[in-house]
Amino acid sequence: MALGAFIVIEGLEGAGKSSVMGALKSRLEEHAIRVVTTREPGGTPMAEAIRDCVKQAWPDETVTQQTELLLMYAARSQLVENVIKPALDDGAWVLGDRHDLSSVAYQGGGRGVSLATLSTLRQMTLGTFAPDFTLYLDIAPELGLSRARGRGELDRIEQAGLAFFERARETYLQQIEALPNAVTVDASQAIEKVQADALIALQQFIDNRA
Amino acid sequence: MALGAFIVIEGLEGAGKSSVMGALKSRLEEHAIRVVTTREPGGTPMAEAIRDCVKQAWPDETVTQQTELLLMYAARSQLVENVIKPALDDGAWVLGDRHDLSSVAYQGGGRGVSLATLSTLRQMTLGTFAPDFTLYLDIAPELGLSRARGRGELDRIEQAGLAFFERARETYLQQIEALPNAVTVDASQAIEKVQADALIALQQFIDNRA
Repeated sequence: MALGAFIVIEGLEGAGKSSVMGALKSRLEEHAIRVVTTREPGGTPMAEAIRDCVKQAWPDETVTQQTELLLMYAARSQLVENVIKPALDDGAWVLGDRHDLSSVAYQGGGRGVSLATLSTLRQMTLGTFAPDFTLYLDIAPELGLSRARGRGELDRIEQAGLAFFERARETYLQQIEALPNAVTVDASQAIEKVQADALIALQQFIDNRA
Repeated sequence: MALGAFIVIEGLEGAGKSSVMGALKSRLEEHAIRVVTTREPGGTPMAEAIRDCVKQAWPDETVTQQTELLLMYAARSQLVENVIKPALDDGAWVLGDRHDLSSVAYQGGGRGVSLATLSTLRQMTLGTFAPDFTLYLDIAPELGLSRARGRGELDRIEQAGLAFFERARETYLQQIEALPNAVTVDASQAIEKVQADALIALQQFIDNRA
């Protein structure tokens, strides 16, 4: 195989991204494909430090929309240049837990940053680099957040309130519809069914690519 | 006094910014002006955490131009919104050790980020907010860096090499020439003379403002 593929799993908290990542990774490895997994923000030592900055609570100051947005793209630049591109060039496939679409959904839809600003930052940071395939796990915020709460405490961004996540979901759905290589899976189903649907979508991507 | 003024001290490492800051602060306080001092990147708990990210060495990855640039503006957004604007609104004067011009000199001139990209990020992060007065301490990199080395170890950005600082100085000089409220002081002089020149420039700014 000449070059790897970059597959991104997107969705709200509690949609089942980690569990689907595991299933996709196993399936790709059964095809003898070498897999590198990433998460955003994070994935390099510097990007993980930036993740800590953006995710933790800062009780004595207001975290501006701009700061949150710029930190997301700073972490993304580190991950893409140091991990994702080298892995793809080396023939591995990369499975990403979130990528650029998360910024569109959360900072765009959720916080109200304009699509024009997001597009400018994306161009500045990533140029034309983009996922080969996006799998969006769609879930109602109430259900997703109740699942996520079951796992432990929510971070600064996850505490933003239901209306924030409703706007993020709405943006995800609009964006996915416009993307050429994207599939939506109903993530309100039992997790075994979510994984099965995700694996069907992956197989279709692999077949189309061959 | 209705509103404070934002005065920025700029210059290469070893130009004497801290010492000049101290002299200006004392002089303003003699005028019964309340003074808030800041440094960039940094100046809020979150901005200081971002400063640590951008200044420290990351031996296992390449810090991209974009990451460095975005982190500078993220820290700047935190400082401007949480410290500088509230202080000015409250009638204090703010003395800044570096501000936006440092990004133009270092990331622009030094690293080669385009002025158009810098202008887009500035507009996105700061809107029309800008210093009321800029004091640029001009020094040849050789001399400045030898002074800075005398103070201890240089950080990741300060280790960039002489040609980097030559380009940063060139950019400083071009930018200062185009700014309406900016004065250049010859920082190769003895520090007492640098302070004296800086105080004369400050007094002129105060007189013009009154």
